[in-house]
Amino acid sequence: MTFFKMKTFIVPGFKSSGIYAGIKKNKRKDLAIIFSEVEANVAGLFTTNETKAAPVKLDIKKIRSGKGIAIIANSGNANACTGSLGYANAMKMARLTAKGLGIDEDMVYVASTGIIGKQLPMESIRKGISKGIALLSDKGLPLVAEAIMTTDTFPKIVLLKDKIGGKTITLAGVAKGSGMIHPKLALNPVSGMATMLSFILTDANIGKKALDSALRTAVENSFNMITIDGDTSTNDSVICFANRLAGNIEIRKGTKEFIIFQKALERLTSSLARMIVLDGEGATKFIEIFVKGLPSNDKARKVAFRAANSNLVKTAFYGQNPNWGRIMAAIGSSGVKINPEKVAIYFDNLKVVDGGLGLGKDSGAKEILKKKEIRVTIDAGNGNGKARVFTTDLSIDYIKINAAYT
Amino acid sequence: MTFFKMKTFIVPGFKSSGIYAGIKKNKRKDLAIIFSEVEANVAGLFTTNETKAAPVKLDIKKIRSGKGIAIIANSGNANACTGSLGYANAMKMARLTAKGLGIDEDMVYVASTGIIGKQLPMESIRKGISKGIALLSDKGLPLVAEAIMTTDTFPKIVLLKDKIGGKTITLAGVAKGSGMIHPKLALNPVSGMATMLSFILTDANIGKKALDSALRTAVENSFNMITIDGDTSTNDSVICFANRLAGNIEIRKGTKEFIIFQKALERLTSSLARMIVLDGEGATKFIEIFVKGLPSNDKARKVAFRAANSNLVKTAFYGQNPNWGRIMAAIGSSGVKINPEKVAIYFDNLKVVDGGLGLGKDSGAKEILKKKEIRVTIDAGNGNGKARVFTTDLSIDYIKINAAYT
Repeated sequence: MTFFKMKTFIVPGFKSSGIYAGIKKNKRKDLAIIFSEVEANVAGLFTTNETKAAPVKLDIKKIRSGKGIAIIANSGNANACTGSLGYANAMKMARLTAKGLGIDEDMVYVASTGIIGKQLPMESIRKGISKGIALLSDKGLPLVAEAIMTTDTFPKIVLLKDKIGGKTITLAGVAKGSGMIHPKLALNPVSGMATMLSFILTDANIGKKALDSALRTAVENSFNMITIDGDTSTNDSVICFANRLAGNIEIRKGTKEFIIFQKALERLTSSLARMIVLDGEGATKFIEIFVKGLPSNDKARKVAFRAANSNLVKTAFYGQNPNWGRIMAAIGSSGVKINPEKVAIYFDNLKVVDGGLGLGKDSGAKEILKKKEIRVTIDAGNGNGKARVFTTDLSIDYIKINAAYT
Repeated sequence: MTFFKMKTFIVPGFKSSGIYAGIKKNKRKDLAIIFSEVEANVAGLFTTNETKAAPVKLDIKKIRSGKGIAIIANSGNANACTGSLGYANAMKMARLTAKGLGIDEDMVYVASTGIIGKQLPMESIRKGISKGIALLSDKGLPLVAEAIMTTDTFPKIVLLKDKIGGKTITLAGVAKGSGMIHPKLALNPVSGMATMLSFILTDANIGKKALDSALRTAVENSFNMITIDGDTSTNDSVICFANRLAGNIEIRKGTKEFIIFQKALERLTSSLARMIVLDGEGATKFIEIFVKGLPSNDKARKVAFRAANSNLVKTAFYGQNPNWGRIMAAIGSSGVKINPEKVAIYFDNLKVVDGGLGLGKDSGAKEILKKKEIRVTIDAGNGNGKARVFTTDLSIDYIKINAAYT
């Protein structure tokens, strides 16, 4: 797997580690630490779920400062629905990490993912934090990607470089996904996302407000446009650190440098979002649903998500069954007004429906549905609004994974 | 099966038949006719899906008269997404039935269910209508229940009697359901529902407005409170005929007779709705989700449907996995404001969550989850609003059925 050429994932000024601390039963890595050698500007977006995990509640308070130095994350336990003890444990994770690193605990963000409703094994975590700090390394980021995995089948990590005013900037990100994936980030000052976690590190010199703005747009166009199962998690968190060591002139909103940075960040989050969908629980297919021809982008988004979250549409793809009628039924029930008689549907470039009527292309459609990646275009024929959503099919393995998981 | 004691399903003044006309490939019954010997008052509710099948569009026009004599219905083909030819075919079904019965075609309602996007085999239907009319019988209603089945595994029929002003009234209903079941009836003058079909016959003497009102309330509390897969169909139709032959004084709104009739009708639709859920595609469990403690019934309904339609909640039930954390996550993402720290959850009478925290009742909960019928109570602790939704688990068989179905 090309994701694992360790030295290609170095962002200047950041050290990381990922270890097995004893939280997971299967002995896989379950604790990650990220450390910035200098105080970084920080932006973060968190789940809109009313049932917020303890670390999410804590981070929402911390993110107001726009500053940070470290992230402590664990998998195997979500620390959600754990009450005041759970909240105290999240604070303790930050405090232990801060103590070990010799920094202020307000500078440490916390993230958890895994089973809901169990208290964290704090003694294992305490020891794990000591061990993780001792192992911090500039080459450690791929181990973070591994340590935040739950039902993920591969670690998700991306690094890219760009130029700002003649200086090279580096961005790297890790993510985990797999199930309970339908991120809904409130794009408000303190806001929200499925359990997906993503940590993004950059050495770009960018102000707090510009970083926040760039992240919101990137997330709106990437993590917030994917769904595996329509379930939004209690723990979704995207945290972005910018340590400003690249030496570029500070990036400010409204400049061409901002646009370069924002686009680079969005390429990164889009790559990670795509990996999350490719690794959706039990998924056998990667489905892109592109909806156009609605009066607004928001309406197009609602239509696209209704089709993407329809179990009947998803099982048809799993069965390689060119049942476009289920797509017509799904898009008619999104709550958005459409005229079915104006709808065209394409599988890849093959038009299968025109004016709401099938074109008798079942045999051609069946061939396309054998592919691993399928693009469905739905043109509602009534405006310039559009949206692109990435999703998976719904398979027997999804049921097996989630019937058994505890 | 007790549903099949033929002579127990007679409603005075109605004749019915159900036959094999050659629409289905598997040679099962696929055409049904219901005939009222006198002109009946009629109320009907139809799908809110924007993609409406041809017969639904036709019936929505006809229902304005509040009058009717016959219903012609077929399974095996939904006559949806079939354009102007499909609409002409729906009209032709009504015309052929009217001609055979010697009545006005405006008095004939049409209903279809099955595959979307294929034209009806009109020659088979023409012959089937002749055959069906020849076989009309006061004992024929169970054959209607059979002839409207698609992936249903048993026919759904209920009959009950009540007394109004000393006179006995009879109500009988048939229904089909199984998949694409999340009825959403717009409860407006001409309004709408999943593919469920239901035909209800009564000899009660009730005015058009009172019948319409009684049906709306009954449907709101029964068919509109069930979901199998969250997918709302293009064909959902509930049509209720009252032929007024029972000889009771006409039932009017606001009278105690109205209340008796409405409650009887709601018992009937509730029984049918329950049968639809029991026969949900691939279902191994019948799940009642009762939500209380919200500021309004509407908010309680949203929370209940979010839990009922969560694939993660449904697969947990399939796996007999007492993962109440998924319920907490689902209800937090319904869009309704809740305080997770006030939430209590019960499986049957066993309290498993209090104040948002697990009570360590996993072993007791597991025993309850082995049952075929499970009642989940969610108390959000903030008001008197409540709602009761019936749903199923999500099983491997659901995926198999829907991956293969065309």
